[in-house]
This record gives sequence, C-alpha cells and structure tokens, in this order.
Amino acid sequence: MIAVEPILFPSAQLHGFCVRVFESFGVPAADARRAADVLAAADLRGIDSHGVARLLAYVEMMAAGRINPRPSPKVVRQTASTATVDGDNGLGLVVGPFANELCMEKAEAAGSGWISVCNSNHYGIAGWYAMQGLPRDLINWSMTNATGLVAPLWGRERRLGTNPIAIAFPGQEEPPIVIDLATCAAAYGKLEIARRKGARIPRGWAIDKDGLDTDDPDQMIDGGALLPLGSDRERGGHKGYALGVMVDVLSAVLSGANWGPFAPPFALRQEIPLRTVGKGLGHFFGSLRIDGFIDPPVFKRQIDEMSRTLRATRPAPGTAGPLVPGDPEREAERIRLREGVPLLPAVVADLREVSRQTGIPLD
Amino acid sequence: MIAVEPILFPSAQLHGFCVRVFESFGVPAADARRAADVLAAADLRGIDSHGVARLLAYVEMMAAGRINPRPSPKVVRQTASTATVDGDNGLGLVVGPFANELCMEKAEAAGSGWISVCNSNHYGIAGWYAMQGLPRDLINWSMTNATGLVAPLWGRERRLGTNPIAIAFPGQEEPPIVIDLATCAAAYGKLEIARRKGARIPRGWAIDKDGLDTDDPDQMIDGGALLPLGSDRERGGHKGYALGVMVDVLSAVLSGANWGPFAPPFALRQEIPLRTVGKGLGHFFGSLRIDGFIDPPVFKRQIDEMSRTLRATRPAPGTAGPLVPGDPEREAERIRLREGVPLLPAVVADLREVSRQTGIPLD
Repeated sequence: MIAVEPILFPSAQLHGFCVRVFESFGVPAADARRAADVLAAADLRGIDSHGVARLLAYVEMMAAGRINPRPSPKVVRQTASTATVDGDNGLGLVVGPFANELCMEKAEAAGSGWISVCNSNHYGIAGWYAMQGLPRDLINWSMTNATGLVAPLWGRERRLGTNPIAIAFPGQEEPPIVIDLATCAAAYGKLEIARRKGARIPRGWAIDKDGLDTDDPDQMIDGGALLPLGSDRERGGHKGYALGVMVDVLSAVLSGANWGPFAPPFALRQEIPLRTVGKGLGHFFGSLRIDGFIDPPVFKRQIDEMSRTLRATRPAPGTAGPLVPGDPEREAERIRLREGVPLLPAVVADLREVSRQTGIPLD
Repeated sequence: MIAVEPILFPSAQLHGFCVRVFESFGVPAADARRAADVLAAADLRGIDSHGVARLLAYVEMMAAGRINPRPSPKVVRQTASTATVDGDNGLGLVVGPFANELCMEKAEAAGSGWISVCNSNHYGIAGWYAMQGLPRDLINWSMTNATGLVAPLWGRERRLGTNPIAIAFPGQEEPPIVIDLATCAAAYGKLEIARRKGARIPRGWAIDKDGLDTDDPDQMIDGGALLPLGSDRERGGHKGYALGVMVDVLSAVLSGANWGPFAPPFALRQEIPLRTVGKGLGHFFGSLRIDGFIDPPVFKRQIDEMSRTLRATRPAPGTAGPLVPGDPEREAERIRLREGVPLLPAVVADLREVSRQTGIPLD
C-alpha cells in the first residue's frame, strides 16, 4: 500500500502552466488556451484521468513528432447539416473544439449539425464538448473512439476503446442535465487507483489475459481487458458492447479514422497497432437546435421539472436518493474552484518532468 | 412450475391476422399492413414481448377509444433537417413509420434528419425503424420512451421506461450491424418468463418495493422496479440511468410528450399516471446520409472488416467468441421463417380472445 495523499493546486495555475507548455511546442496561443480549457474542465469536474494527468503524454507525443502542434483541420466533405473533418493530426484538444464549433454553426443554419472527424488524437473529456451547446440553446452530442482496452462480450482481447457518449440538456432554474459516460463498466483510471492502493476491484470490471473474470487490477493491466457496461451476458454486457461499437462506427468508420483495435495510442509507452485502417483517431459531434423542435423556455421548464421529479424519487435504502446526471461533476467543480485541484504525487511528478523538459516553471 | 411449450405459427398467418384485426377497427389498409409488418419483425427476430403478444393490448386500447385508429399525424414545427410531429394519438405502429419516413426524406435532402414525436403510443421494436435506412444507405437511429418500469440509480420508485436505443449500419458482404437495446439491465419480458417458470432472476435486474435487490420476479412485479443497465453504482448503474434519461428527453421533452413517470400506459390494465405533462408517448428518430460523410462502398467495406475483426477475437472461456450486434436476431429470423414463430400458450389464448372479440379467424 502506497500513500496517495493529494496535493492541492489552484486551477488557474495549472491552466496557465498548460497554456505555456503547449505554446512552447509551437501551438498557437488561441489553440493552447482552448486545449488548456478542456484539460482544466476535466480536473475541476473530478475526471482526474483526463486532465493535467495526461499532459506528459501529450508533451511526449509532440516532442516525438507524433502530434502536429499547428494543424490545419479541413472539411473534406459536407452537406447542409453534416461534414467530415480531417484533423491534420493535431491535438484532439484543438481539433475537437474546431469540429464542435463547426457543428454548432451547421445546427444554427440548418437545424442540426453532425460532424465525423478523422486524423485526430485524444480530445479530453467528452462532456466539455456537450456543454458548449448549453448557452446557445443547442443540444450537443459528443463521442470519440479511443485506444483499445475493452473486450467485446465473450471475447478475451482488447478490441474497443472506452468510447464515451456525452450529451447535455439546459434547464431554466435547475442546473443542466449533463451526461458523460464511458461505455465500459468502469474507467481504466479506477483500476490504476486500485493498483496503487493495492486494493481489489469489483467483479464485473475486468478480465485477465485468459478471459477470466478477475478482482485483481494487475491481472487486467497485464494483458487482460476491461468489460463493457453490463459486464456479463446476464446483466446486459452485450448492450455496453453494442454501444461501444456504435461510438466506434460513428467516430471512426464514418470519418475514415482507425477503428477498434487499430485506434492509435494516446501515449508513447503504448503499443502501436500492427496496422492502420484509416487516419488517426476519430470523433463524432452532433448539435440540435432546441427551437427547431419546441420553444426553448418550454423545453427548459420541463427539464427543470424532470430534474426535480428524479431527485424527489424515494431513496433506495442506504442512499440519499437519486442524483441527476451531472450532479457529481458540478459538486466537484464547486469544491475545486474554492479549494484547488487535488493531484496525486505521481501526477505532480509528471508535471515536474514536463517543467524540466520545457523549462516552464510549475509553481 | 407451469408448462410453457410453445406452439408454432407461420409468420404470414400471424401477419394476415394482425392486418385484418387492425382493419376491423377502422385502421386504413396501408397503415394496418405497416403495423403488422412491425409486429411480424419483432416475432421473427425473437423479440417475443413486442410482437403479436402485444396485439390484445392494442385492440383493447382501440376498443376503449384510447387510441385513434385513423390519425392524421402533423408536422407542427420544422427546419431543413429537423421536425416535431404530433401523432394525433394514433397507433405507434402507424405514427412511428410515418415519422421515420419523413426523417429519411429530410436526410436525403439536407444530409441528416431528426424527428421528435409526441402524441403517439407504443411503437413496437426500435430496431425495425433503424433497419429501414439500410437499403437507402442511411444510418437510422430510433428511440422511444415508455411506461415507467425502471428506477433511477439510488431510487426505489419506477421513474423511467425501458427507453430503448437502436441504430443500424450496412455492410457490403457481411450482414448489417444492428443495435437495439433497452437501457435497463434486463427486459421486463424476461422477468415475466421467470415468473411463469417459477424461477429466480439474477441479482442486478430488479429491486423490490422497498428498494432492495431481489432475485424474486414477483417482488419486482409487486411494486418494485427494474434496474438500469449497469445495475449498481460500482458496475455503472448511473450510466444506464443516464442513457434512459437521454432517451426520455429526446423522445418526450423535446417533442412535448409525457416524460418519465408520466408516460402513458400501453395497456388498459396498467395504471394511468396521476397527471399529464404533455401529449401521449414520445419517439425520436435520426437519419444520416452515409455519402454526406464518406463513399458508401468504403464505409460498408470497413463495416465488413469490423464485423470480421470482432468475430475473430479469441473467445472467452466457455463461449464460442463474440457475436456482432444483430447476430442473434438474424439467426432467430432465419429459423422462424422456416419453422414458424413459437408462441406461448398464454399468447395464443390472447390471440383467440382477439379473434372472439373481432370475429376474425386466427387459423
């Protein structure tokens, strides 16, 4: 058992560090700020695996010339309401926001916008993209494929990424409903934390390299795989598997990116797939104009009422009752804006390594 | 333990019976055929709970004047790529196909089409709608809300329907990938079968009226609730819950239908919610033109390769290896087209009751 006492950093300090680090690799100032925004949102919202904990990986990939710091993303095909974007192998944190903005502009002109993106890289948290639609009265959807970690139900090999789905709905007086979920049973980050603590993991999260259910995080990390949401056939593992396939097709097959086990790694230490079947990683964005369907104030009042109805459900024993999707992240943000972002010592060590490599002070 | 030996009926015979039954209530001939098509697809594809097993419920609702047999569905609002449809309280099996067709026409004109539907009723299997896009090189999406059966995670009351998501992707040489899943851990139909057999159900499917996990189907049926996909917090029950909310918002809040616990019942014997918050039940359809993103032959060849890659995954112990979403339903259809549709005696008794009420012979 290793101590994992976190160290608190103000979000603005981490954000400023990220901006300067990205700029030091030639990322244009506006892109660097945007990329840092996406990372900061992850850290504030408590999705620790997708914030500055990933900065060293991005830096190493740029230093090795595996990510283009100054991409020119291009629309390679389009209709009134759809487009395919080639991300020019840029940071996903830059290509993603570009495509998401284009998607919202399409929606504002044609009622809806749908963009499939190829030739990109890891884009941060899916939820950030979904939330960009909220102030514009748009319902935004965001998905991405990712490096293979998840086994299809009844398989014993990593064939799909954790392939998240995010969507957000604005309320009037109540906070928005913000949905952001990976299509596997549990995030890889949770296994890593269990491993650091020397703890067991619940059954249903992972299999070992022989395809057997395991409660030992090392057995998954050493050639095993994560299980899809639903875990096994009885409890609906075929459903989580199908959702992972859906995200992969929309993000990568539709855009001409690498799908499934051929999705590129997001860090140098990861294995490179044996072959490529497309260009880079893929994302999928959608945007629907609420007023294309219903008056936005009417929609928002119903969202308020739905949130209140869900919260008012009689609690299951031992719980305080249902939350509304987005509640835990909003609560984390409230606390972390005040108290700072807690980083594990291992993450701080990575940031100090970035600081050493780039000459940019962390403190 | 009660005997449940099924009786085989040719699909065409059941289809013809349904057409005549719908017509006897004044449903126009083309609508009656279309409604029967949707029911027949469920029975052939092995989704027994959504085929002719529901006919008596539809008939009773029409006989009681609770469903309009001759609706005039109307577009109440639209943009180039979106619309809201009021189903005029018609059969969902008539309103759904109408809206789905409109959605595909929008996609063919504007690249994508998205339709939210209010004032409808139970629309059959979500997968049927998704599959209509396949021959037209469209990626079709279909969702619907439904009568409340599912508890939000940490709640002990029924607040959401089984709210399914369906989407289908065409292949070239390989069969299409057809995804059709309810956002709960297990279908209500599976509990009913367990009850008839006097069998226990797996942990993670349901809670009793006190919110406690149960393996007794009667305990769920008697005031308990189904659990969302993922079952509990550890295994991702908050994700299935969030997906159920997503479907409800897109189908019902966006269209102005009744959402959550206010979704109307699909059968006379079910309780009517205490109040209404909109019009009828809601659906959501989407359609994307593949050639708006990529050349369809390129897309289909990659779908072929993805299917082959998934099937070639080394099998988990005790399994024959992963399937591709849609495989079990296609296999059921192959067998049932040849051998007939197996109906439980209770279902046959319901059909004979329909026959008695309408004077239309079953055999």
